[in-house]
Amino acid sequence: MSEALAKKAAALDAADGLARHRELFALDDGVVYLDGNSLGALPRHVPARMQDVIAREWGQLRIRSWEESGWWTAPERIGDRIAPLVGAAPGTVVVGDSTSVNVFKALVAAVRLAGDDRDEILVDATTFPTDGYVAESAARMTGRRIRALAPDEMVSALGPRTAAVLVNHVDYRTGRLNDLPVMTAAIQAAGALAVWDLCHSAGALPVGLGAHGVDFAVGCTYKYLNGGPGSPAYLYVRGDHQPRFDTPLPGWNSHEDPFGMRPAYVPGDGAVRGRVGTPDILSMLALESALDVWDGVAIEAVRAKSLALTDFFLECVEAYVPAGRVSSVTPVAHAERGSQVSLSCAEAGEVMRTLTARGVVGDFRRPDVLRFGFTPLYVGFADAERAATELAALVG
Amino acid sequence: MSEALAKKAAALDAADGLARHRELFALDDGVVYLDGNSLGALPRHVPARMQDVIAREWGQLRIRSWEESGWWTAPERIGDRIAPLVGAAPGTVVVGDSTSVNVFKALVAAVRLAGDDRDEILVDATTFPTDGYVAESAARMTGRRIRALAPDEMVSALGPRTAAVLVNHVDYRTGRLNDLPVMTAAIQAAGALAVWDLCHSAGALPVGLGAHGVDFAVGCTYKYLNGGPGSPAYLYVRGDHQPRFDTPLPGWNSHEDPFGMRPAYVPGDGAVRGRVGTPDILSMLALESALDVWDGVAIEAVRAKSLALTDFFLECVEAYVPAGRVSSVTPVAHAERGSQVSLSCAEAGEVMRTLTARGVVGDFRRPDVLRFGFTPLYVGFADAERAATELAALVG
Repeated sequence: MSEALAKKAAALDAADGLARHRELFALDDGVVYLDGNSLGALPRHVPARMQDVIAREWGQLRIRSWEESGWWTAPERIGDRIAPLVGAAPGTVVVGDSTSVNVFKALVAAVRLAGDDRDEILVDATTFPTDGYVAESAARMTGRRIRALAPDEMVSALGPRTAAVLVNHVDYRTGRLNDLPVMTAAIQAAGALAVWDLCHSAGALPVGLGAHGVDFAVGCTYKYLNGGPGSPAYLYVRGDHQPRFDTPLPGWNSHEDPFGMRPAYVPGDGAVRGRVGTPDILSMLALESALDVWDGVAIEAVRAKSLALTDFFLECVEAYVPAGRVSSVTPVAHAERGSQVSLSCAEAGEVMRTLTARGVVGDFRRPDVLRFGFTPLYVGFADAERAATELAALVG
Repeated sequence: MSEALAKKAAALDAADGLARHRELFALDDGVVYLDGNSLGALPRHVPARMQDVIAREWGQLRIRSWEESGWWTAPERIGDRIAPLVGAAPGTVVVGDSTSVNVFKALVAAVRLAGDDRDEILVDATTFPTDGYVAESAARMTGRRIRALAPDEMVSALGPRTAAVLVNHVDYRTGRLNDLPVMTAAIQAAGALAVWDLCHSAGALPVGLGAHGVDFAVGCTYKYLNGGPGSPAYLYVRGDHQPRFDTPLPGWNSHEDPFGMRPAYVPGDGAVRGRVGTPDILSMLALESALDVWDGVAIEAVRAKSLALTDFFLECVEAYVPAGRVSSVTPVAHAERGSQVSLSCAEAGEVMRTLTARGVVGDFRRPDVLRFGFTPLYVGFADAERAATELAALVG
């Protein structure tokens, strides 16, 4: 470590308008948690809320809670809590199921909207693999074919056969931020529909789904949104697409009259059309409670701090780690960077195990990537400096 | 009420070997809870376990819990807890997603196994509607067609075009128990595959999935299994079908090497193949904890008590309610009865609202059904007698 960088960290922390948010989370001062892009930390107030949900809402009110405790409307209500964080209008986001299941809904609905003469789905070849696997199934079941391309090859591959494009806003491995406004405009100019996966961007940077006219989006809630392990994912359907949103999973929760128990399926209006079966209330209400930490937080301030944190971490790594031991695979340009820094490194698996044992928790992605996620609501500049110090001690 | 029936109830409760299980649940002595077939009551020990899951496993161990707290393997581990309750072999049940999503997986996989020359799916026309809606989508996406039939018409409708048959073990509305062994044998003799929905039978009566060679089954866990509101559903795939189980939802959790992040999908072996995305851990571990109430309980004893309870309730209704005010739509024969009694009744919605206000909680199913579910682990004979007394006071 260097005296100068430690002092710089202290100054940056002192000037950080989001620094007080760290108190809202259950964190151990001895640990630098840089894995919030895998599992967000626990907001301190969630256990008490969940005790109430379990002991009173389930235990005492039982079946009455579907109405009296607002369980039935939770998927849309929580969707409306997430909407402003991703720049979506009220009534366009619904919470439920996993990201994989939502990719299936969105992609099948997108190709159906695109029409039968468009038979190609472009998929981000660098994607988190589940999106690619599920896209293959969506293509197989709708009579389309898949082309896997790097995001920067996609725009030139668009054509009259393109039905839909599935792409990640931020690449899970490298942390590269793809240009959502430009790609969405190009996809739509070609007559296709844009389906964005926001898992690694929502809660870390402005997304602007509405402003950029995105057709569909999906994302998880257990990373930067801190919803808890495996908390339910969400689906965004642009308002004007909703009346023609033709889901492959028409469960009873999406019916216009669910308790009518009618034999014919008639979808409801709005975001509810993205629902499927009975929502997993405990996971869902933990997420709802966790979202309280966003009260009064501007996502632009989060983005500014995120970039400052990753810049500073890279500066510390550059200063502390001898040349050649690690190299960043995360883009330098702010416009191309999410909220993580990925360093390729020899013996990365072993390095990350040791770092974790020393209290710097990131994760390892095969074959050689050390991944450090910076959650602006609870990671500070001194944390970044300490992480670089420990890394240098290990690989220096 | 009658002195004789009240005494009979007391005697039956005194002789009930399962009576002590009621103490395991958070129940109010002033309330007769006959809605466990909609939402099972809270086992008393679950809140403390969930506090530990949330505050320690998530809050303190964070990302380490995926391995150290056994989160990653929860879907198969909890599947193996459910397996003996439905007569399934270890390694054939996996927990996750909603019943609707699991119907989609099972039905698509079944028609794929049946082969391309079989283009018809028979669906229980009296089914809980979500199964029918999802079956329509499965048919549409696999190029099959749907025929909706009453369960007793299905066997005679089987033929060389039948790919799969989706049927409920117990009808949600009437409480009719369909003959799983006989129907499964007939379906398979016709060269088709049997997909059973166990939502209203699992935890209330022996199912015998293995003994009767059922191909696929799905079910929820929040009714007689008391897993909590919207707790995850399960999928059963018969062992010899597993290597050819071709899922329409090939999420990364079902990959043979999920953390390999490989671009090509290669399914894992066994029950894991039914997984999709990241499991909803909080809901899932509440279910796991709730299953502790089954330790040492034989499902045959549960069935015996269930039949005794529904018999006795019908006896009390017959004795107390003036003729013509209600009529049972639940079969009299034990072989055709699940664990509920459904009474058709004028103004049933209003009657159920008033009954609930008086502490007898069942539910109303349109247009005219009062539904009373009898959960043998926590409902007693005096409860049944009181429910009939209150009903008689209202409609008498």
